[in-house]
Amino acid sequence: MAIDRRNFIKASATAIAASAVSGKLPAMTMMSRSKKMKLSYSIYDISMVHTFNISGFSRDVAQSILVEISYDGQVGYGEAGLPPYMIGQNAQTAADFIKKVNLEQFSNPFILEDILNYVDSLEEGMSCPKAAIDIALHDLIGKLLDKPVYELWGYNKVTTPLSSFTIGFDSEDMVRTKIEEASRFKLLKLKLGKDEATDKMMVRVAREITDKMIYVDANQGWKDKYYALDMIGWLTDYDITFVEQPMPKNMCDDMAWLTSKSPLPTMADEACQRLCDIRNLYQQYSGIVVKTLKSTGLREGKKMIETAKALGMKTMIGCSTETSCAISGAAQLSVMTDYADTDGNLLISNDCFSGMKIVDGKVTLNNKPGIGVVKL
Amino acid sequence: MAIDRRNFIKASATAIAASAVSGKLPAMTMMSRSKKMKLSYSIYDISMVHTFNISGFSRDVAQSILVEISYDGQVGYGEAGLPPYMIGQNAQTAADFIKKVNLEQFSNPFILEDILNYVDSLEEGMSCPKAAIDIALHDLIGKLLDKPVYELWGYNKVTTPLSSFTIGFDSEDMVRTKIEEASRFKLLKLKLGKDEATDKMMVRVAREITDKMIYVDANQGWKDKYYALDMIGWLTDYDITFVEQPMPKNMCDDMAWLTSKSPLPTMADEACQRLCDIRNLYQQYSGIVVKTLKSTGLREGKKMIETAKALGMKTMIGCSTETSCAISGAAQLSVMTDYADTDGNLLISNDCFSGMKIVDGKVTLNNKPGIGVVKL
Repeated sequence: MAIDRRNFIKASATAIAASAVSGKLPAMTMMSRSKKMKLSYSIYDISMVHTFNISGFSRDVAQSILVEISYDGQVGYGEAGLPPYMIGQNAQTAADFIKKVNLEQFSNPFILEDILNYVDSLEEGMSCPKAAIDIALHDLIGKLLDKPVYELWGYNKVTTPLSSFTIGFDSEDMVRTKIEEASRFKLLKLKLGKDEATDKMMVRVAREITDKMIYVDANQGWKDKYYALDMIGWLTDYDITFVEQPMPKNMCDDMAWLTSKSPLPTMADEACQRLCDIRNLYQQYSGIVVKTLKSTGLREGKKMIETAKALGMKTMIGCSTETSCAISGAAQLSVMTDYADTDGNLLISNDCFSGMKIVDGKVTLNNKPGIGVVKL
Repeated sequence: MAIDRRNFIKASATAIAASAVSGKLPAMTMMSRSKKMKLSYSIYDISMVHTFNISGFSRDVAQSILVEISYDGQVGYGEAGLPPYMIGQNAQTAADFIKKVNLEQFSNPFILEDILNYVDSLEEGMSCPKAAIDIALHDLIGKLLDKPVYELWGYNKVTTPLSSFTIGFDSEDMVRTKIEEASRFKLLKLKLGKDEATDKMMVRVAREITDKMIYVDANQGWKDKYYALDMIGWLTDYDITFVEQPMPKNMCDDMAWLTSKSPLPTMADEACQRLCDIRNLYQQYSGIVVKTLKSTGLREGKKMIETAKALGMKTMIGCSTETSCAISGAAQLSVMTDYADTDGNLLISNDCFSGMKIVDGKVTLNNKPGIGVVKL
């Protein structure tokens, strides 16, 4: 059953109150000294268009944490999904974490390295609320400088890649329906890893219908390296671009063997959490998938992508089931990745932001400052 | 003999002329469409305080290329030294390169990735003029946004490291004099690699005089891995922090062996040119030295540092004999490095910029926008 209730604290009201408390002075009288960052949050119940099936679980509702940070008359928005695979991170623990964060001790939002190191140090894990804060700070900085985040990073928005649309495993008829619904996408992601018959049916049906670029995500579903190599061999006949997380993330030696033999590139998703993982993934996978809710946000996500690129690895920016807020944050990173899988906002029926769009299958950023979102 | 002539084209005059040519329109009439970046350059003859001796050559004059880029009423300054070890790069070839660069084709200076990829693609090598352009663009962007470059990167200027002061090899008396002159530094760099007697005299004399942090730079001077390991073993008795470029840069296997055995960290300097080198230096050296005149500037230099850090390597920002323009550019990167060797401007007698300072031995950045320099 989909939850449609909109459990949303009006943080803009909080921001106005905060601004009153901070006691704005006229511009000439050292106004900057009275500036304080004010943080507020809410838990958002997301309704999904289709029940979502991947190797391991299925669901038709989701939650995310929304964050607002106000400073100097601007409000930055951030978000991170709270999917069940982020063990220990849920509405309660994420909220508890946010309550520990005191941004008022920092003189300004620009010193991201200091602020985010502090936030990171408050508690191990908790990458989701950390990411929501990071994205809100980037949005805020962009608004303060009146520049989109991608431009502050030195990138041109025309360099965004195609975004994939995800097809969860389902009956043959439903797979056909979903692929037809995805007509405006030029890159499809098929969720495999259930069983051999379903996996092969998914790929065969998809290739019967379309000659679009397709990649597959086994979500750790193949437990044996020889089986995985056989499956990848079979996939090469179907013009598959790459294979995401073929084997369990902890099977490092088997995975390095598989990548060295594989005719298709392999991409680390579950195995790729934070920056410190990259050196271990090098020569174990052909590339990495970065998700902001795992990387603790845009700043560390950007470092991960740049490090992987420097090592000659492929890069993809992914997402979870999130509104256009988190997705527009992630989409800022897409200017520097080979691929994007930023369709999470399209799988939900109650988006509360508008921002990045998929136009002709391509991630399309706007010229608005920050992460380029408008609250609906 | 030191050349003292100041061969400096007044590029600000060029910028004013350029601005007249670009036909500035009143603010309300799509002024942004008439904005064009104008590039000018000059070759600067640098006079050195002392004759500079390192393993391989000595000199008492130097040259650098100065660049100015004007756009929208602001001028960005950039520079790169043209030291003799940058084979094929000199006043003539650097100037010839700059003449090929057409920045007017770009709509704005913010799309650094596009602009610098274009500049890089014009000719192989030529890292010095490429660096001067990169630094000028960063300075320009900072001025347009009224923010220091380090702050646009999210760093706090308090996180800068100590800067070393370089002592070239010399007679025992001169070494004493130079170390006494360096009293305001807390980190000394000794140039070794001449011969065993000189190397050991340098270290012994330095340690007789001071208990400051000292590191050594052999500038590829040790040609045999067993000899290099013996020397490093000897150095450990003198409390040396690390050893820069002990062996020739192309002796990769020997260098990997040396690093694996060395009781002191090893840092790659000559072996470290650009981002693509980092993956080869990983597990061959303990760390890297980035110099903007090799990395093609701040943007690629920053990627190098972030990649090295992600791989668990130490990082240092270096410099050449350059004015406070290039050094202040390099100093922006010092907020993210373990060490800095940014004393190049202190070794010259005709600095034509003021910018970063060394205060109590520490790299000290100011709050000015861009790279924080003022033309003298």
